[in-house]
Amino acid sequence: MSTYEHISSETADGIATITLDRPEQLNAFTTTMRRELIEAFDAVDADDEVRAVIVTGAGRGFCAGADLSDGAETFNADTGDGQHRAVRWETGEIDGVPRDGGGTVALRIAAARKPVIAAINGPAVGVGATMTLPMDIRLAGASARFGFVFARRGLVPEAASAWFLPRVVGISQAMEWAATGRVFDAAEAREGGLVSRVLDDDELLPAARGVAAEIVENTSGVSVAVSRQLLWSMLGASTPWEAHRLDSKAIHELGAGADAAEGVSSFLDKRPPRFPMRVSTDYPEFMPHWPQRPDGM
Amino acid sequence: MSTYEHISSETADGIATITLDRPEQLNAFTTTMRRELIEAFDAVDADDEVRAVIVTGAGRGFCAGADLSDGAETFNADTGDGQHRAVRWETGEIDGVPRDGGGTVALRIAAARKPVIAAINGPAVGVGATMTLPMDIRLAGASARFGFVFARRGLVPEAASAWFLPRVVGISQAMEWAATGRVFDAAEAREGGLVSRVLDDDELLPAARGVAAEIVENTSGVSVAVSRQLLWSMLGASTPWEAHRLDSKAIHELGAGADAAEGVSSFLDKRPPRFPMRVSTDYPEFMPHWPQRPDGM
Amino acid sequence: MSTYEHISSETADGIATITLDRPEQLNAFTTTMRRELIEAFDAVDADDEVRAVIVTGAGRGFCAGADLSDGAETFNADTGDGQHRAVRWETGEIDGVPRDGGGTVALRIAAARKPVIAAINGPAVGVGATMTLPMDIRLAGASARFGFVFARRGLVPEAASAWFLPRVVGISQAMEWAATGRVFDAAEAREGGLVSRVLDDDELLPAARGVAAEIVENTSGVSVAVSRQLLWSMLGASTPWEAHRLDSKAIHELGAGADAAEGVSSFLDKRPPRFPMRVSTDYPEFMPHWPQRPDGM
Repeated sequence: MSTYEHISSETADGIATITLDRPEQLNAFTTTMRRELIEAFDAVDADDEVRAVIVTGAGRGFCAGADLSDGAETFNADTGDGQHRAVRWETGEIDGVPRDGGGTVALRIAAARKPVIAAINGPAVGVGATMTLPMDIRLAGASARFGFVFARRGLVPEAASAWFLPRVVGISQAMEWAATGRVFDAAEAREGGLVSRVLDDDELLPAARGVAAEIVENTSGVSVAVSRQLLWSMLGASTPWEAHRLDSKAIHELGAGADAAEGVSSFLDKRPPRFPMRVSTDYPEFMPHWPQRPDGM
Repeated sequence: MSTYEHISSETADGIATITLDRPEQLNAFTTTMRRELIEAFDAVDADDEVRAVIVTGAGRGFCAGADLSDGAETFNADTGDGQHRAVRWETGEIDGVPRDGGGTVALRIAAARKPVIAAINGPAVGVGATMTLPMDIRLAGASARFGFVFARRGLVPEAASAWFLPRVVGISQAMEWAATGRVFDAAEAREGGLVSRVLDDDELLPAARGVAAEIVENTSGVSVAVSRQLLWSMLGASTPWEAHRLDSKAIHELGAGADAAEGVSSFLDKRPPRFPMRVSTDYPEFMPHWPQRPDGM
Repeated sequence: MSTYEHISSETADGIATITLDRPEQLNAFTTTMRRELIEAFDAVDADDEVRAVIVTGAGRGFCAGADLSDGAETFNADTGDGQHRAVRWETGEIDGVPRDGGGTVALRIAAARKPVIAAINGPAVGVGATMTLPMDIRLAGASARFGFVFARRGLVPEAASAWFLPRVVGISQAMEWAATGRVFDAAEAREGGLVSRVLDDDELLPAARGVAAEIVENTSGVSVAVSRQLLWSMLGASTPWEAHRLDSKAIHELGAGADAAEGVSSFLDKRPPRFPMRVSTDYPEFMPHWPQRPDGM
């Protein structure tokens, strides 16, 4: 059990569960939560015992969005001393403006070397919805409520969700949710492709753990880490040749590795695999770091 | 009420309704209709009273495709004096050939600063189908019929639909419709992701107005305009960092603006918002113009 | 009937049927099959009698994946004398490593000038699943089983599937299948968007022939060939302007051609078309070759 302030994190059976943990505020997003989420993903990426990550919310909600306790000045980085202004000093700048705080979390999750499963209970609104988009799998409890409400707050979709959302649900569904800013239920989220399954609330975490366990028990951690980077990074590649030159390298290097030998042997022997390779030491050096800053900084 | 020849346009309650208006010809597409559609989108973009746009067809159809009254020479820009040849002189050239007329409309709609809802009644065939792809939301009446019939006419999908269609419905569905050129009904369109809802014909326009009203009543026009450009333009971005650098600027500028203050205040006060900012004057200067000609012309 | 060793190919009624043909081994993929598939696609592309291609498997399966008869050394290109090592000498290198064998097939299929329909019976696992992704339409028999099992073998998704799979089924579904490596049935494939229809096994080939016949009887071969390249290549284009400049050329050239005249005339006459143009001689020269090697080699 870690000692974070606005989140908690624990690991069992190869699965790290990161919990947004301000239940009295429906886990509203703060500067502290932003920093701690990045630290938590750094920690699980560095820990070879962690093979999959679940993100969920404590209490009745997942994340109600930005903490609005600074009122009308909440999103003003130039005045007051609210959460948003604080982000300015923590995130650094890009092109002369403070980096959007939600985006620093989303890009960190996008770069994760472990597969990430969102278990969404109750409200997931604003940054509470957009932070789930770079996660690999989204499961919803029946109580889940979603909203890309930015246009109702005089803002725009943040956390790089303009890139992620249309790739997850298609441009038309993305535009309908972004233009109306409507809050919608789990059934609409399922119908629109935002979540893959809707479960009774008390079945939500068990279902997430079930998918995670399927990964832990059957797969090579290095294979999953490289696969994750390959698939996400190729979303932006202009031709399949870019995938071919990268997966040719991966098949060449991993095909001669100990995990491939064990993978084929265990399959032919009809026994569970025991993969020897480790993400911390065996992640291939030729893999590009993704996503990379377009300005190279 | 405007004084167009082959379309009509009227605005009420913040919603502009642009009607393809040659009902005796099932609203077949002409050079005049092409020019007037672009003029109508210029007009609604410039009018701050317009917060959402509906495009529909007069009478029994949406748009039966190119007017074929020039027969076999219809699509020959070098001979005869048909509609297609006329486009040559109106659209200018790209790479030494006349610009495709449908494409000039599609690209104008793609660049719109207001969200666009297609209310598709009866046949939407050829350019009548492809012109709806850069619109944000497509609703179909039960009478709707669709066809990307170009391969049956010895042509290819136009109006930049090779870019739009796979992004709206996925490459496999796009290829099935493009390769067969089949005409299909509203149910197949819904199943394939081309439209989000199928309604009784007399419920079609009310439903479109319902979505438009949801936008008008609840959202900031500047937020919606910027969101629309962000989401559509990021479909072509190679990494989420490009979204992060752009939405960081947008959150920084709009977060300090009057609409964000009103958006948060009205939410906390549980009252309808009254957003003061206007698209004509307050659209952020840093937003790139999208879509931009790849040759920079 | 051709004289291949590990596949067979026959043409009737304008439809080429390429059959993976090692039924005793569930059509497991070999170096020979790799080379013969490329030769078969070269042949059908050069044959103007072929208007559509069906790929299916002989016997109880489609393709069980790489032949594993070399055991733990199967994917090691440096040792032993297995299939994978043999690929090294056949495929040439890219960036100093042997090209992935499945990728050479996938890229060849991507470049095909005829529409390709997969009729998937029984297991389609590993390269047996990824080779279907650059095909245009996938139909499944009730017996079909799919698996992107690479992470269970210590490998990663190959055959450029990191590019294709998320474009076919979306990034979230792609990541779930890639991260778990699970084998799933036809219903899950249909639900996830991997196949468009599930049929009784004895209806599978008739259904595939039905779609192929719809193309053969109604469309221009040149139109379909150009449409296929337009739609697939524009998946990687950053803006719709790239489609507009390409389809403006296509509409200009094909609009003045004999197939467009016949397409419009036959439509107005309400008779079946007889398109005179041929892919081998009339495919437009301005069309870029897709997909192109990013290193220009």
